[in-house]
Amino acid sequence: MNISEFGIQVGSLPHGPRNLISDVAGVTVGHATIDDERSKTGVTVVLPCPGNVFRDKLIAASYVLNGFGKTLGLVQIDELGTLETPIALTNTLNVGLVHDALVEYSIGVCKKDGTPLRSVNPVVCECNDAALNDIQLRAVKKEHVFRAIESASADFALGDVGCGKGTTCHGLKGGVGSASRLIRFGNDTYTVGVLMQTNHGRLSDLMIGGEHTGQRLAHLLESGTPDKGSCITVVATDLPVSSRQLKRIIKRAAVGLIRNGSYLGHGSGDIFVGFTIANRLFETDEPFRNARFLNEDLLDEAFRACAEAAEEAVLSSLLNAETVTGFGGTKRYSLRELYDKFDVPK
Amino acid sequence: MNISEFGIQVGSLPHGPRNLISDVAGVTVGHATIDDERSKTGVTVVLPCPGNVFRDKLIAASYVLNGFGKTLGLVQIDELGTLETPIALTNTLNVGLVHDALVEYSIGVCKKDGTPLRSVNPVVCECNDAALNDIQLRAVKKEHVFRAIESASADFALGDVGCGKGTTCHGLKGGVGSASRLIRFGNDTYTVGVLMQTNHGRLSDLMIGGEHTGQRLAHLLESGTPDKGSCITVVATDLPVSSRQLKRIIKRAAVGLIRNGSYLGHGSGDIFVGFTIANRLFETDEPFRNARFLNEDLLDEAFRACAEAAEEAVLSSLLNAETVTGFGGTKRYSLRELYDKFDVPK
Amino acid sequence: MNISEFGIQVGSLPHGPRNLISDVAGVTVGHATIDDERSKTGVTVVLPCPGNVFRDKLIAASYVLNGFGKTLGLVQIDELGTLETPIALTNTLNVGLVHDALVEYSIGVCKKDGTPLRSVNPVVCECNDAALNDIQLRAVKKEHVFRAIESASADFALGDVGCGKGTTCHGLKGGVGSASRLIRFGNDTYTVGVLMQTNHGRLSDLMIGGEHTGQRLAHLLESGTPDKGSCITVVATDLPVSSRQLKRIIKRAAVGLIRNGSYLGHGSGDIFVGFTIANRLFETDEPFRNARFLNEDLLDEAFRACAEAAEEAVLSSLLNAETVTGFGGTKRYSLRELYDKFDVPK
Amino acid sequence: MNISEFGIQVGSLPHGPRNLISDVAGVTVGHATIDDERSKTGVTVVLPCPGNVFRDKLIAASYVLNGFGKTLGLVQIDELGTLETPIALTNTLNVGLVHDALVEYSIGVCKKDGTPLRSVNPVVCECNDAALNDIQLRAVKKEHVFRAIESASADFALGDVGCGKGTTCHGLKGGVGSASRLIRFGNDTYTVGVLMQTNHGRLSDLMIGGEHTGQRLAHLLESGTPDKGSCITVVATDLPVSSRQLKRIIKRAAVGLIRNGSYLGHGSGDIFVGFTIANRLFETDEPFRNARFLNEDLLDEAFRACAEAAEEAVLSSLLNAETVTGFGGTKRYSLRELYDKFDVPK
Repeated sequence: MNISEFGIQVGSLPHGPRNLISDVAGVTVGHATIDDERSKTGVTVVLPCPGNVFRDKLIAASYVLNGFGKTLGLVQIDELGTLETPIALTNTLNVGLVHDALVEYSIGVCKKDGTPLRSVNPVVCECNDAALNDIQLRAVKKEHVFRAIESASADFALGDVGCGKGTTCHGLKGGVGSASRLIRFGNDTYTVGVLMQTNHGRLSDLMIGGEHTGQRLAHLLESGTPDKGSCITVVATDLPVSSRQLKRIIKRAAVGLIRNGSYLGHGSGDIFVGFTIANRLFETDEPFRNARFLNEDLLDEAFRACAEAAEEAVLSSLLNAETVTGFGGTKRYSLRELYDKFDVPK
Repeated sequence: MNISEFGIQVGSLPHGPRNLISDVAGVTVGHATIDDERSKTGVTVVLPCPGNVFRDKLIAASYVLNGFGKTLGLVQIDELGTLETPIALTNTLNVGLVHDALVEYSIGVCKKDGTPLRSVNPVVCECNDAALNDIQLRAVKKEHVFRAIESASADFALGDVGCGKGTTCHGLKGGVGSASRLIRFGNDTYTVGVLMQTNHGRLSDLMIGGEHTGQRLAHLLESGTPDKGSCITVVATDLPVSSRQLKRIIKRAAVGLIRNGSYLGHGSGDIFVGFTIANRLFETDEPFRNARFLNEDLLDEAFRACAEAAEEAVLSSLLNAETVTGFGGTKRYSLRELYDKFDVPK
Repeated sequence: MNISEFGIQVGSLPHGPRNLISDVAGVTVGHATIDDERSKTGVTVVLPCPGNVFRDKLIAASYVLNGFGKTLGLVQIDELGTLETPIALTNTLNVGLVHDALVEYSIGVCKKDGTPLRSVNPVVCECNDAALNDIQLRAVKKEHVFRAIESASADFALGDVGCGKGTTCHGLKGGVGSASRLIRFGNDTYTVGVLMQTNHGRLSDLMIGGEHTGQRLAHLLESGTPDKGSCITVVATDLPVSSRQLKRIIKRAAVGLIRNGSYLGHGSGDIFVGFTIANRLFETDEPFRNARFLNEDLLDEAFRACAEAAEEAVLSSLLNAETVTGFGGTKRYSLRELYDKFDVPK
Repeated sequence: MNISEFGIQVGSLPHGPRNLISDVAGVTVGHATIDDERSKTGVTVVLPCPGNVFRDKLIAASYVLNGFGKTLGLVQIDELGTLETPIALTNTLNVGLVHDALVEYSIGVCKKDGTPLRSVNPVVCECNDAALNDIQLRAVKKEHVFRAIESASADFALGDVGCGKGTTCHGLKGGVGSASRLIRFGNDTYTVGVLMQTNHGRLSDLMIGGEHTGQRLAHLLESGTPDKGSCITVVATDLPVSSRQLKRIIKRAAVGLIRNGSYLGHGSGDIFVGFTIANRLFETDEPFRNARFLNEDLLDEAFRACAEAAEEAVLSSLLNAETVTGFGGTKRYSLRELYDKFDVPK
């Protein structure tokens, strides 16, 4: 469901054809969703590019706004500014197993094309879905990661799927959200795409398009939920930027988070990972590489694109999720159901 | 002028008696304003505590959200987690002279009580007021810094004064804003106070209380202004927190900035400095110090207090500033004048 | 083997009774070593304290000197300044499985005393032992982690054991090294203990006690080995320090590394993790905690203790390792064997 | 005086023709020395390139190993990765005045070629020379900075000159040191040059070429000096590297510092600033820039070059300094005089 169907417009920049992170050429997303009596969880993978990303790495960056989280792989991204695996998102206690699955996946890919692999840096992000999911089970196994990778596509589901099956956003059913924005430099159009795993915020703080929606809705639900989750943001772009510039861009996804009502709560690991498909670091024996970089003074448009896409991605996660009743009977309403059921004006 | 007179309420927490940073006991603020044909600038000092802060230092922290700025003194704050001078705010090209004035001031204070001083780390923040001020003049001299310090008081002016004389916020006349919030732990009330030098944002992005005010006002002014300034945030508190905890608190001032419409523009050095008057590091020969710290899980209230105070401080800077016509005839309207003149509904 | 038997003395401070990290009261270390045809690897765990460290956390810090590594868990340590699991060290491709084992271990510990656990941040460090170990196998399984934990003791083996079974230090057989130093403040003695997984450096760069030992030895071995490994340093202390102070202390372990000849090679993930058993964060409902902190000006002794212990820990790893012939026939000589075989004067 | 005349060789890489930072093409250095009854201080400037560096900026990086220092300008270098002024080094309490002088200098340069300047980020580093210099005087005035800039040359004095007039290194007379190293990639030779202001370390810790020289010398001097100073390192190169890569390179100057006996003392602000003259950011209206970057895997040679040049630069500062008797009669012996006077074998 596109938020425009809902009568909401976020920001002023145009979005790409799918209004998804996959508007960045070559980016695909896959889910494996686990939905049984005890488990409401899963894994979502962002495949950043075709081909072997371990051999031909991408320029990448991370930004930690609130590090109360277990995201794996950031130490090396910060040092080397590169991404060499898909990015996986899952629940908090499953990051180890998913990490190992990405190691196995990378070994397999490299075996096929004869690339030696002795070391690899999987990036695994997480949110805590324990409100709906029996998290100690660590239900996400290796096969879920492989299945998510195999199913990856430029067209992918949103809402309560994959890593978003069990997450809670502003007290409502959150999940996976995505959006994109287009910007122009010279004669060329570039895309900034965002995918989010939303699991943060209190209902009473929820804002939509500047309006304090959450304050109108909060009384409809029995109990407040503490701001205990996290929010993971993956940013993709085709803009030729350095890892330093990319870090500046992805940081602006915080604007989107905050516009929707986040207070960057203590318990919320707010973590941003990004990559560009431009200037790909193809394997070479040459001592030097040529690259192309955006003029620093022009970054403002990229900042705005990232902020708008992030703001819309939060809403996308809310508007696409169905109500989920989890482990132990806990229920998280979908925003749409709340609107419909209580006939609240949107 | 208090924003409540304007019919606006920011957030849900109560404010302190003055709704100023000086609601934190012992904090005072002084201005020296330079307002002549070529210069619309000045200096504002935040005196963090009574007595000799060099000898008996305070726990402090800094956070750089956007480092396109010239703030001085952060290297040592980050290493040692302490503040040992007043914090001065001025224009971009004046930071060196103001730094030297704070060195001289500290020497003088230490001479009086016999404290040896061979090294001191003044903290000087800045915004670029070149739109209204002939900035290359560096009009702020040593005597202005001393005058600002001497005039420091818990009651102080807001708006187009001191370091805020020449700044532009969301295309309007910005300046100095301040607000405070109260929170309770156990039987005790604690205060988080914020003072801002606002010089950031585009008019069309301005939001007030969630409403896109700037979009209604933007057509009233001839020309847009690029988001080229900065925003400096000083946070004071009496909460017993470590420098690590304090860094987490002051970071949340970004929430306030963004709620009012900032996109954290490339040219905007968004810098946060904070201190607590609790656990003051009184000079001692003892090898160990006793201290008291807030339980980490309780930080959320302090985060919210900081975010709310920051959001209100931006508005406070806008609502208290008068229209200023600067060097070369450039004019920055006050928000109030815009409202009145054009009879825009608030 | 103690380095003093070897006629070497590092620095000027006295060491603790064991000259091991376990001289810090309550710290124990356990290994599980895998030594078969294809695998020369293992896991080493540092148990930081008795009792449930998840429930009653320790103050901790990390420092990344070279982030070309896959260490897990640092994001949260940096944000919260706490440690809540044992620290495990293993090979590069095994960090995911070991992470998951620590999750399972923590769940088990918390079940026993009824502590709810929905989120836990295991710290897993790694070096790349692929020169001797068929690393793609990921031979370290859950049971090895549990076995290492069960076997943990204040007296533990050094050299080619546990996580050090397959590592290479300065072209020789490295492995696990440890040392400690004692310092006094007032009437009390405090301990700084270091444990290292050494896997870094070129033989020709090796220095022992200032002497360029490696240059005399380099011709004895057929081939140079590139500086491709890493070095993990775990620091324990009983000094009452904040996480900020602790970060400053553990950083000085770099002095030890460099004194032994490291050039901080590109491929060497040089990562430091530390904790103090002082000021333990026992679970409480009180809003505030009392704590005690070392006066900042006295940190120099702690710095020196950490540097000396680290310098000695590198040597300890070299002097305690036996020659190991690994997967594919690659051989790493022990330093002692080299000395003996070639009758090199020590 | 070249250290080879002294029979010392540091490392294995060849040095450039001057064995100075000015072996990097276009880099020049100038001093203004103040040497009177009360003042033993001065200023040293590193001019990084011909032409207007404000208009056509250089790629730059900073690294703070110990932030107990007052270096100005790092916030912006970290954000934007660029250098836009000469780098000035002076005494601790003079950084403000020297900052202001660099603002004035930059205004003047820009006026000449019509470049608008509303904001500029001078980089000013410092060491505390209060042992020999009446530091509260802030004897370095604007004219000294201009004089240093005017006198800048590829051939420049070392030892107790400029910013090094009053500094103390390992209890001896330190000052300004410099060295360079050459490395080859493909058919081309590249240079890494280092300039240091040395003011750190205890005499008993001094090591020269691995030998514990300081332990033999310590008894010759009446009193130990605490490790209270700092060490500033400026790195220049012509290698085409990004600011991220440059940060990795300059960090390795720590290896040189530590090889000479530094323990990175609490009071020692160990700060590194570097720039490359490659990929200069010439002013342009084009949205994109082309650039060329070293393959990451080849950085090791650059690391070694930086480490060796830094180690030699420390020695260069010691070997070129004369004995200085300072304010209040404090005396700092030159290493050469100590050698000669006491007939210590070198």
